Amino acid sequence: MIIVKNPEKKDWASICERPSVPQQNLQSLVNKVFAKVKTSGDKAVANYTKQFDKVVLSELRVPETEIQKAIETVSKDLKKAIQLAAGSIQKFHKAQTPQKIEVETASGVVCWQEARAIERIGIYIPGGTAPLFSTVLMLAIPAVIAGCNEIVLCTPPDKNGNINPAILYAANYVGVTSMYKVGGIQAIAAMAYGTATIPQVNKIFGPGNQYVTAAKQHASQLGVAIDMPAGPSELLVLADESANPAFVASDLLSQAEHGADSQVICVVTSEKLIAEIGEKIEQQIKVLPRKDIATQAINNSKFIFLHKDQDCINFINEYAPEHFIICSKKEDFYIQNIRNAGSVFIGNYTPESAGDYASGTNHTLPTNGYAKSYSGVNLDAFLKKITFQKITPKGIQNIGPSIELMAEAEGLQAHKNAVTLRLKNLEND
Amino acid sequence: MIIVKNPEKKDWASICERPSVPQQNLQSLVNKVFAKVKTSGDKAVANYTKQFDKVVLSELRVPETEIQKAIETVSKDLKKAIQLAAGSIQKFHKAQTPQKIEVETASGVVCWQEARAIERIGIYIPGGTAPLFSTVLMLAIPAVIAGCNEIVLCTPPDKNGNINPAILYAANYVGVTSMYKVGGIQAIAAMAYGTATIPQVNKIFGPGNQYVTAAKQHASQLGVAIDMPAGPSELLVLADESANPAFVASDLLSQAEHGADSQVICVVTSEKLIAEIGEKIEQQIKVLPRKDIATQAINNSKFIFLHKDQDCINFINEYAPEHFIICSKKEDFYIQNIRNAGSVFIGNYTPESAGDYASGTNHTLPTNGYAKSYSGVNLDAFLKKITFQKITPKGIQNIGPSIELMAEAEGLQAHKNAVTLRLKNLEND
Repeated sequence: MIIVKNPEKKDWASICERPSVPQQNLQSLVNKVFAKVKTSGDKAVANYTKQFDKVVLSELRVPETEIQKAIETVSKDLKKAIQLAAGSIQKFHKAQTPQKIEVETASGVVCWQEARAIERIGIYIPGGTAPLFSTVLMLAIPAVIAGCNEIVLCTPPDKNGNINPAILYAANYVGVTSMYKVGGIQAIAAMAYGTATIPQVNKIFGPGNQYVTAAKQHASQLGVAIDMPAGPSELLVLADESANPAFVASDLLSQAEHGADSQVICVVTSEKLIAEIGEKIEQQIKVLPRKDIATQAINNSKFIFLHKDQDCINFINEYAPEHFIICSKKEDFYIQNIRNAGSVFIGNYTPESAGDYASGTNHTLPTNGYAKSYSGVNLDAFLKKITFQKITPKGIQNIGPSIELMAEAEGLQAHKNAVTLRLKNLEND
Repeated sequence: MIIVKNPEKKDWASICERPSVPQQNLQSLVNKVFAKVKTSGDKAVANYTKQFDKVVLSELRVPETEIQKAIETVSKDLKKAIQLAAGSIQKFHKAQTPQKIEVETASGVVCWQEARAIERIGIYIPGGTAPLFSTVLMLAIPAVIAGCNEIVLCTPPDKNGNINPAILYAANYVGVTSMYKVGGIQAIAAMAYGTATIPQVNKIFGPGNQYVTAAKQHASQLGVAIDMPAGPSELLVLADESANPAFVASDLLSQAEHGADSQVICVVTSEKLIAEIGEKIEQQIKVLPRKDIATQAINNSKFIFLHKDQDCINFINEYAPEHFIICSKKEDFYIQNIRNAGSVFIGNYTPESAGDYASGTNHTLPTNGYAKSYSGVNLDAFLKKITFQKITPKGIQNIGPSIELMAEAEGLQAHKNAVTLRLKNLEND
């Protein structure tokens, strides 16, 4: 890891900079696939699946028999683990259910806000080596709590046309309404436009590679909302002498194994922790199956030593980490003063992987400093809030003259008229 | 207006289609201006202001003396009106303040969610004939309530280098922290990158023409959040025989005067209302200063006649109007069943212009059917919600084994290790 001691404030911005991911220009490919899926629907989806995933499918939709078979395949222990995690995620997201907010803003003027579920949502689950059934839980559970009518899942098939059984089990267990063997740009295009088989959705959630990310960006310009811009995962650990160096090392490595581009930062207020944690990393990394990936990520990662807690929190807020672990005697100071982070893990017995799977918080979180302006996925992400207002005759008499003046000052005469007409009508009553 | 009686369900989608706005490809211009502002900062901003706004400014920031002069210029009556509106908007948005949500999801596992303000936000107010000081209220008031540190306002100067006094008055009254005479793409670029004079912000709000919209889209790809995709304003009125035809006509016209591309839809369950409302429109439109604009919008607008209230609400949810007025004896049915709308206005004495200015709800709302997936601007738009978790040794013993199983099943060994290490440590205690 790179060691930075007492960096000057003017250098913080460059220390916080994420390595720029070489962006292929995928726009023309995305445009092409979207255009084909728009005009040819399922046929285009099947063709791209053949081209990109090297598999010819008899049907795109996962049949009920395959789901039932998956349920039988998944081990009893893994099922129990998934159920425990689902229970925690349910509890925490259900508690986020918004209440109706009602205010009489002026006499006779009642305004209120009510939440409504987004009707149809799409969940994208990447294929590849890691079958991310945990992400199925994180996205489908709040969608069910919100009351979304349709919860559509797309995930690429393997070369034999199969989906990992744990993904199908999790999706079925939490209430996904239909599942499709489609991945990549064509999956996002299918959910954006709808095909004969795959429903059109109002918002698309879920992680993915650069093709999927570019496709989601494109979909967002067509009026389909997306959860958030995606980037490589990242973790910042704040540690003082109360931290357990082996635990900190294990957390840093759990982040590092995600990918060579994963971001790992360790901010310490005790200089000797750098050597102690570094040593534990060396020990632990040796036995990891994803050792090569983790090593690359660790080599690019940074220890930052700063004397004062106030400097630490200022730096952390500037970095705006996706995951933020606090192992400090002064944890309350950090909890109170953290402004920019996705999810925060407190104390020696709260590893990041708890939040990745089973504590109950959501693991779909803003990366790349976006925690300065975005929340992670939560129940709100599956809801829209609609405002309502009801004004009595007395109410429009109270606020009407102000509206008339303001509309006139903005040069909007018809806006004024709509009030004037009503006020005159009341005068004549 | 175009009259459509009892349309078949298969035709609803095409009736709901918004006229496509001819999109100029502005990407290369946007790229150029952003690149210049990134490298040359204030100098580039001043040059573009000279080029596009035809004015040379001695300074970009609105000086305190100019703000004070504006305060003197605005009439006492307009000040009172702005203050009344601000009071209502304050009350309604303050009531939206989220509470901390805390849940013990499993024994020893406590999760909570807290809101934090976005630190720096930017507000764009268009120039032109209508000085939209009401939009200043709608965007700055919730930002102040949220606790945003910096509230930056950019608005283009007129040819004499001035800003409308009502905009400056409103901005100063509600607590905007700094104001700049900058418009167009260069304003968005300046707020996205920051210059020596103009602060970099985390999220940009506000309406604008196609240049501003394209610039906001571009900024959103650089990690600066934006409020929502913008489109022409729209209104849908649902009227039965209890509606006052003159009032309905005045509401339709108040929407139509916004622009030739404004969308106006009137859904009626009583056929004779079409003629009655049509007649009132003809009477009222004659005396409007923006008659030409309103006439163009009205010509493209539609009366939809449907027998059943259930069909009406289904159609309205398919259309997903930005503004939805209910003038019906069965208003409760519509309130309960509306799923997709920005803001809802109930009864004969609740004109849309009330919500545009002074009822207390926000007037920055999703257009173009985006109400299916987006909320309007509300207090949440100025906040991020951060999740926290704190797990005790007992807690990790409760959920740890499940995390180990799931991490292993996803092929993430280091995620598992972070838990295993802690569990072993507790065993040895």
